[in-house]
Amino acid sequence: MKNTATLLISCPDRRGIVASVSHFIYQHNGNIIHADQHLDHELGLFFMRIEWNLDDFNLPIKVFRQQFNKIALKFEMNWNVVMSIDRFKLAIFVSKQDHCLADILYRHKRKELNCDIKLIISNHPNAKELADLYQIPFFEIPISKINKKNSEQYMLKLLKKYEVGLIVLARYMQILSPDIVKEFPNNIINIHHSFLPAFIGANPYKKAFDRGVKIIGATSHYVTDGLDQGPIIEQDVIRVSHREEVQDMINKGRDLEKIVFFRAIQWHIENKILIYSNKTVVFN
Amino acid sequence: MKNTATLLISCPDRRGIVASVSHFIYQHNGNIIHADQHLDHELGLFFMRIEWNLDDFNLPIKVFRQQFNKIALKFEMNWNVVMSIDRFKLAIFVSKQDHCLADILYRHKRKELNCDIKLIISNHPNAKELADLYQIPFFEIPISKINKKNSEQYMLKLLKKYEVGLIVLARYMQILSPDIVKEFPNNIINIHHSFLPAFIGANPYKKAFDRGVKIIGATSHYVTDGLDQGPIIEQDVIRVSHREEVQDMINKGRDLEKIVFFRAIQWHIENKILIYSNKTVVFN
Amino acid sequence: MKNTATLLISCPDRRGIVASVSHFIYQHNGNIIHADQHLDHELGLFFMRIEWNLDDFNLPIKVFRQQFNKIALKFEMNWNVVMSIDRFKLAIFVSKQDHCLADILYRHKRKELNCDIKLIISNHPNAKELADLYQIPFFEIPISKINKKNSEQYMLKLLKKYEVGLIVLARYMQILSPDIVKEFPNNIINIHHSFLPAFIGANPYKKAFDRGVKIIGATSHYVTDGLDQGPIIEQDVIRVSHREEVQDMINKGRDLEKIVFFRAIQWHIENKILIYSNKTVVFN
Amino acid sequence: MKNTATLLISCPDRRGIVASVSHFIYQHNGNIIHADQHLDHELGLFFMRIEWNLDDFNLPIKVFRQQFNKIALKFEMNWNVVMSIDRFKLAIFVSKQDHCLADILYRHKRKELNCDIKLIISNHPNAKELADLYQIPFFEIPISKINKKNSEQYMLKLLKKYEVGLIVLARYMQILSPDIVKEFPNNIINIHHSFLPAFIGANPYKKAFDRGVKIIGATSHYVTDGLDQGPIIEQDVIRVSHREEVQDMINKGRDLEKIVFFRAIQWHIENKILIYSNKTVVFN
Repeated sequence: MKNTATLLISCPDRRGIVASVSHFIYQHNGNIIHADQHLDHELGLFFMRIEWNLDDFNLPIKVFRQQFNKIALKFEMNWNVVMSIDRFKLAIFVSKQDHCLADILYRHKRKELNCDIKLIISNHPNAKELADLYQIPFFEIPISKINKKNSEQYMLKLLKKYEVGLIVLARYMQILSPDIVKEFPNNIINIHHSFLPAFIGANPYKKAFDRGVKIIGATSHYVTDGLDQGPIIEQDVIRVSHREEVQDMINKGRDLEKIVFFRAIQWHIENKILIYSNKTVVFN
Repeated sequence: MKNTATLLISCPDRRGIVASVSHFIYQHNGNIIHADQHLDHELGLFFMRIEWNLDDFNLPIKVFRQQFNKIALKFEMNWNVVMSIDRFKLAIFVSKQDHCLADILYRHKRKELNCDIKLIISNHPNAKELADLYQIPFFEIPISKINKKNSEQYMLKLLKKYEVGLIVLARYMQILSPDIVKEFPNNIINIHHSFLPAFIGANPYKKAFDRGVKIIGATSHYVTDGLDQGPIIEQDVIRVSHREEVQDMINKGRDLEKIVFFRAIQWHIENKILIYSNKTVVFN
Repeated sequence: MKNTATLLISCPDRRGIVASVSHFIYQHNGNIIHADQHLDHELGLFFMRIEWNLDDFNLPIKVFRQQFNKIALKFEMNWNVVMSIDRFKLAIFVSKQDHCLADILYRHKRKELNCDIKLIISNHPNAKELADLYQIPFFEIPISKINKKNSEQYMLKLLKKYEVGLIVLARYMQILSPDIVKEFPNNIINIHHSFLPAFIGANPYKKAFDRGVKIIGATSHYVTDGLDQGPIIEQDVIRVSHREEVQDMINKGRDLEKIVFFRAIQWHIENKILIYSNKTVVFN
Repeated sequence: MKNTATLLISCPDRRGIVASVSHFIYQHNGNIIHADQHLDHELGLFFMRIEWNLDDFNLPIKVFRQQFNKIALKFEMNWNVVMSIDRFKLAIFVSKQDHCLADILYRHKRKELNCDIKLIISNHPNAKELADLYQIPFFEIPISKINKKNSEQYMLKLLKKYEVGLIVLARYMQILSPDIVKEFPNNIINIHHSFLPAFIGANPYKKAFDRGVKIIGATSHYVTDGLDQGPIIEQDVIRVSHREEVQDMINKGRDLEKIVFFRAIQWHIENKILIYSNKTVVFN
């Protein structure tokens, strides 16, 4: 298993950032295995992801945090460092459609996703079978206009109890209220079954059919308070023609949703995503 | 050169349509070389395109029209028949950006498009050079708030004079007023530089950049009175990432626009498109 | 559940085929819901797929076969007719890699594939867990140089016993000997993990990596005696770059393999494929 | 116009490379605007591209070369540095098919390609018209078995005279002999009209048709002595079906060829390509 640290940085663009950061890591005997950077010319912002091997690195991460802070202050950096051995703790939310859930659980079992899936929450009982099969704790929490506040309080309690760091909405057809969203800023990933910003909201395949588009898509994005408005992580598309009825689009779309959703989760747990201006930088 | 007739039909779905039509053509010694059909189950509508060789066909088209009308009446068909020797007469409208124009002119010269390009109309002088090179009559007709009505009257006169049957808007950045649109129903093709219905109107690449999409597109559609609302003929897309700035998207998009626009024109002049419910059936 | 018949025809091109066939169906009160045809100009061959509703059709299929034979003889047709209620009986062969198997089993359970999966055969024990989960009979039949002949005889016995009509090789890493292939002509579908005809045989991702291609693919094809030489049913591709090592290609490729394999099986069991000249006509 | 220098490096992987290089540039007041790197784990090789603004850089490039050499020696680097103001000098070779030529000339005129096109060489007279239109010197140099040696000597003389640094083969259907190839190592770009390594050599669309593939492609690569064996720079693909005959594939393929060829040339002249192990690293 790999033993690396990953540093994610964003700061105003200035001379010497790369030199300072790479020198610091070199000084402490770190061997850089990946480095990527991005410059937003318009906003004058610099972004960097740097991953290095910890095998011969001579600073404990705690000490690294203290010492690196000097560089960070000098360049006014937003930054954080994560270690590959600290696995993400996930909660999966799902409603009736379980293809994204099934896909994630299978990939997780086959080690395509290096994270811990702590629990599954659904407003329907259907997913229990899959949860049992993969031995993940399952909680059915129905949502109605009346109980929504209580239900979400219960969810928050569970998320806390299981120390969840990332929520993924695997076709969860309820809108999370701001109370939950604000507890997981940039840590809730949704899969929307359209090529955003086209066809926001419910029944996007029906809308796509009615508009007569020749290509349909799927979009994974971070959840914010605006419906389907959060930073887009990944999108993919597939051709359709007049021969495809709504149900055919739904069928074709499922395969898109699974892959787009998986990629977004994978990049997130590999710390490859930086967010700014309601957009993502994906260092993949 | 091929010598065929193409029959396009739409009518309520009923038993015996294919049998009647194909029997009629067979009876008169026509050899079918392409046939395609489509059934809209929801609306109960049937669509058909049938193309046959005229070499041994024993009915002049005039007579065909009279005799086929009996079948058409029986099945309540909307229909029309066109002959491959009747070439479409095109007008190309363009503004400053000339990549779609240049592409169409080159393809036309290399015989990728079997039609006659009768004239080029622009609200800017730039395209004159290309028009001269390919020896197509060029008319610069500036558009301002004040002269728009007159300018469009002049355009209509030119379109009439040159017997134009199809207008193609090769990045023409003016909105045609309903006076022109209603004279060419389903005979004006536009290329819009976004993946419709996302990013309607001006500056779609800027809007795409601001929204942070991971894929950009281009859309060719028939022009109706609603801005970018007409039936979609073709779309295509290309991936972008955080590295692409607006200008990079514009550059990448140009290649999409050229191909999507070309395909739409080609299918139209090959009589492969049927329109209904603000959608297209493309028999390609 | 739909109740249709599908007629697949190939014959020398001649006037009157469509008229005769469609008239025959109309005469017996069949309502055509799909019809598609293809003409190979070079070889002068005509292909047709026609599907009609049986609800009001006034010929039992047995009688249909007898009566249609007159038309078939006249036009020298190869033809067969299948009914939607007659479900395909499948055997899945698999080795260690089980992603295609898992995908097919999940889709089958969710009714994306209308067929019966009768048994799973593997030269490894791994797939038993999935087989048990979906309650499909599982047979581990190891293959070695010494036992291959016996093992395949046993397979043939099982295939006969379960009345299997279609074998699908879900990453089965053994070469079927001609004894099996000849028993299932055009009824064995393989998924090959490359964009054929590039990278035939073992380790295609390694070969793709070594050649430095920028796009990798997957191919589903019918199995013939020539290794990876059979008629191609479907292919799909995905971009790679210098950043992808062999294992990354394997990971990305898995998603291609699943989708390409599924499509091929689906089209086969929906009787949408005609085979000639070592190629496929896919009426989808 | 931008005023930057670009440094391309390859060397054995070792700690401190990024730190040393970035520190050196920083020291001399260079502001890095792009940096990208790649590590081939298997071979233990490190690759880097770094581009910085020269506006405030306090070393003339001549001096930079001398001083940077110390770092280069320490890390055993292969390296070179180029300045954005030094434009590439191109020769375009073409045969009868002129779509790639026309595309490149149009893009060059519209400033999509920042290079100088010094001359066009063809074994046919056709391209003279385009050459005249864009006012590029044109040389018709017929090739036959008998005159090939002399013709190529004449070509070499012309290439020398015009100080050509990059040859691009825009569908040039002759094989360059090793005499020319060895004079332009990694500086000849070809466009091959197939998805290599499938369908090497002549008539790839015919071969693709015969094999019944469902996707066709185009490949741009550097020319080496092995036919279509050189390092691949870029590939792209498009779907085909049984409906496409060879000529349709040729038509569809043309659009691929133009785009793939353009991208390869663009990346080359922007110094974004590193070559090793008969593969390319494209830092785009």
